Amino acid sequence: MALLGEDQLQAVHEASLALLQDVGVEFMGAAARAVFASAGALVDEETGVVRIPREIVEYAVAAAPVHFTVTPRNPERRLEIGGDRIAFGLVAGPPTVHDRIGGRRTGNLDDYVTLVKLAQCFDVIHFLGNQPTSPQELPVGTRHLDTYLANLTYTDRTFHCLAIGRARTLDGIEMMAISRGLTLEQIVDDPCVLTIISVNSPRRFDEAMTDGLMAMAEFGQPAVVTPFTLMGAMTPVTLVAALIQQNAEALAGITLAQLVRPGTPVVYGAFTSNVDLRSGAPAFGTPENARATIAAGQLARLYRIPYRASNASASNAVDAQAAYESQMSIWSGVLGGAHLLYHGAGWMEGGLTASFEKIVLDVEMLQMMAVTIAPADVTAAEIEEGVAAIADVATGGHFFGSPHTLARYETAFYEPLISNWQNYESWVAAGSPAADERATLVWQEALARYERPPLRPDVEQRLDAFVARRRAELRDVDH
Amino acid sequence: MALLGEDQLQAVHEASLALLQDVGVEFMGAAARAVFASAGALVDEETGVVRIPREIVEYAVAAAPVHFTVTPRNPERRLEIGGDRIAFGLVAGPPTVHDRIGGRRTGNLDDYVTLVKLAQCFDVIHFLGNQPTSPQELPVGTRHLDTYLANLTYTDRTFHCLAIGRARTLDGIEMMAISRGLTLEQIVDDPCVLTIISVNSPRRFDEAMTDGLMAMAEFGQPAVVTPFTLMGAMTPVTLVAALIQQNAEALAGITLAQLVRPGTPVVYGAFTSNVDLRSGAPAFGTPENARATIAAGQLARLYRIPYRASNASASNAVDAQAAYESQMSIWSGVLGGAHLLYHGAGWMEGGLTASFEKIVLDVEMLQMMAVTIAPADVTAAEIEEGVAAIADVATGGHFFGSPHTLARYETAFYEPLISNWQNYESWVAAGSPAADERATLVWQEALARYERPPLRPDVEQRLDAFVARRRAELRDVDH
Repeated sequence: MALLGEDQLQAVHEASLALLQDVGVEFMGAAARAVFASAGALVDEETGVVRIPREIVEYAVAAAPVHFTVTPRNPERRLEIGGDRIAFGLVAGPPTVHDRIGGRRTGNLDDYVTLVKLAQCFDVIHFLGNQPTSPQELPVGTRHLDTYLANLTYTDRTFHCLAIGRARTLDGIEMMAISRGLTLEQIVDDPCVLTIISVNSPRRFDEAMTDGLMAMAEFGQPAVVTPFTLMGAMTPVTLVAALIQQNAEALAGITLAQLVRPGTPVVYGAFTSNVDLRSGAPAFGTPENARATIAAGQLARLYRIPYRASNASASNAVDAQAAYESQMSIWSGVLGGAHLLYHGAGWMEGGLTASFEKIVLDVEMLQMMAVTIAPADVTAAEIEEGVAAIADVATGGHFFGSPHTLARYETAFYEPLISNWQNYESWVAAGSPAADERATLVWQEALARYERPPLRPDVEQRLDAFVARRRAELRDVDH
Repeated sequence: MALLGEDQLQAVHEASLALLQDVGVEFMGAAARAVFASAGALVDEETGVVRIPREIVEYAVAAAPVHFTVTPRNPERRLEIGGDRIAFGLVAGPPTVHDRIGGRRTGNLDDYVTLVKLAQCFDVIHFLGNQPTSPQELPVGTRHLDTYLANLTYTDRTFHCLAIGRARTLDGIEMMAISRGLTLEQIVDDPCVLTIISVNSPRRFDEAMTDGLMAMAEFGQPAVVTPFTLMGAMTPVTLVAALIQQNAEALAGITLAQLVRPGTPVVYGAFTSNVDLRSGAPAFGTPENARATIAAGQLARLYRIPYRASNASASNAVDAQAAYESQMSIWSGVLGGAHLLYHGAGWMEGGLTASFEKIVLDVEMLQMMAVTIAPADVTAAEIEEGVAAIADVATGGHFFGSPHTLARYETAFYEPLISNWQNYESWVAAGSPAADERATLVWQEALARYERPPLRPDVEQRLDAFVARRRAELRDVDH
């Protein structure tokens, strides 16, 4: 779907290139600045600001692949990124966890594992994003190892490397490589993991993130370059200004990746929403968020680079607001042509909390979306059988007992997880459960039937050995 | 948005014409059958089935206007129907009313008036559909007069004639004509009201409805011909069969209107959803509903006839389900290119209940949609000022105090009715109100500031006189 006309799109593009060339972006990392300098960009070592001539950006955009795959330990879970497909990710990043049984609490490894198991329970969750919650009882320096191991133990989906610095990034790539029976070197140009590179908007990349980005690029692993641009706070308040800035920042990161290794897979990330200008509070699933998501998709298509959007909501409860903000996000992501929808399931409170009930609500909505956008089955045979069925039922009659209905009874319609279609009296007799209460039952049942995806014992041993070795090394570094 | 490919669309169209020509549709009214017979259709007087040659349907489709206006008593509330505009209607039809203060109850005139006042309070509600609730304490034979008078007293928007029989229809047209200082004759071809003609699917039009349709056509008032086609009950379970049947039924009604008065305004109505095949319960806002709504919009565009969709939900509570089902309906209506969205605000329990809180929730979602789909403001000046604002803020800084922000502070972003963007702690301190609880405050405040739209005393007198005369006449008929 297009929000911008062709001329408007070109105008945003041109303004972004001019901004990169004339005003520039700050790179706090010396290594990143060195890459830009040797490519011919104008680097101010004092301020860290890099001004990037348009030719370099154009070269990078042309070098980025239109399509690539990401293969986790179970090849059936391979993601095709690009083209007409969209993949949905688990909630990523919240420090806090909530469910209706356990209440709201600081995230720990137990919750982390439960969230990962829930992702494994639902086919519509295609990948893990960054940590679904931070296991805050674990040491910061080695926590990434515990979470990577949990990812590989409790799911067979791909996951997100914590790209804060080179070491954490390489640990993630290498552990997924081990799970596939490969080495770090063998995985180059055979992507197996993802990461998000967040921009410290406006116009700043910190050192740890660009080191992570460069490590991903060096080993041919895809980085999703995502400016986090809340209009009114990190960008001006107008859509066009926010798009220009977001686009310049995303292109700056994409350019760095392509300069490190031309042809390395990258994703154009967009996360432009707005703040409440009275309180400064972030808002998500707003009209402004939806418009930016649709328009940013046009920019990604202009560059022929896969596109990332998000399912976001600021609601504090799994209520109507949570649903409509997420619907606004999901629809605009789909209409924007997103290939990756981060935070697909479970993100609430503007990303501060991972909620079990919100996961179920989101899974319901994502499953509904998947059915909605599937191609239509309009064949000559379907038409012929359909018309015969219509002609076979008397005017004013019904189709409940029609042979055409009976033959398709079980698969005709999407069967919901939490939608309740009882009449009012039956619903009251059942205790008037609202949708969030029904969601509790769904995640409880999902966990009860959860099965750990098989992992070969020798692979498990090699992963354990890797973690033990790296844990010791990192502890030595710390001391 | 297109769900069907061009070939698939043509195949549905062809199958519908063949169904009308070879199998036919039952018209229970002798007057309707006479119209078809004199146009050359094959009428079986015993079964009431009318088989309509494709040439007649093609003639009717060509005769129907692409665009028309509907002018109520306040010309500023004129609706342009067709083209790129969409108009949202108030909930229509429920026997029951609900709000969090008064509970769930049988509808009466007081509730009717309150619902109409709420429509008047929100600019995003553009018209009244059929009765927002039935005032069941009033006599059935004259109830329509009370509701028409309430519509004209408490709103300045257009409304829906109860097209059950010729008399009720003409009363509605005439009362709106009086409110504009015109007569029934003067209003011909100057549309001022709407109606829905429901089809008793499969393939049956009852007598009262076609009499109403013919009266509307005779006086040049727009009828929205809407098959109510729940897949699995009133149509086969497949999307393609449901579309073929719905399309044939809609075209049959549209053809009747055009045969009565060529060029009379009509709207292509679609209300194809599905039932739960295990319980028979109707479901709305489902993926099947959304797909049918998008595809039916393609059919309406093929015929160049304005298109009607709905905002529907089966939820018993104003909870996450209510929001996601309505979002699915609203988005698919917009993406289907609907010109009228019936039941835009307040419809719940699959149409059995009109809810004050659901009105507020829907108004929020409709307002958000209106902002989302507005054209983008990407001018050279906006770009220049935006880029200057970006360059003016240091890397890693913020835009809260930017002159660019301050100049646009008040109108930059959509200001919500019920979305709560407080942080969790503040929200808990405020009593953890969920979205439906916040909605209660919004309708209470709206009613408190409601003002009756001015009506000239002589018009008011003429309307009262008309109602008194008709009430007496109808009482005489009853006795």
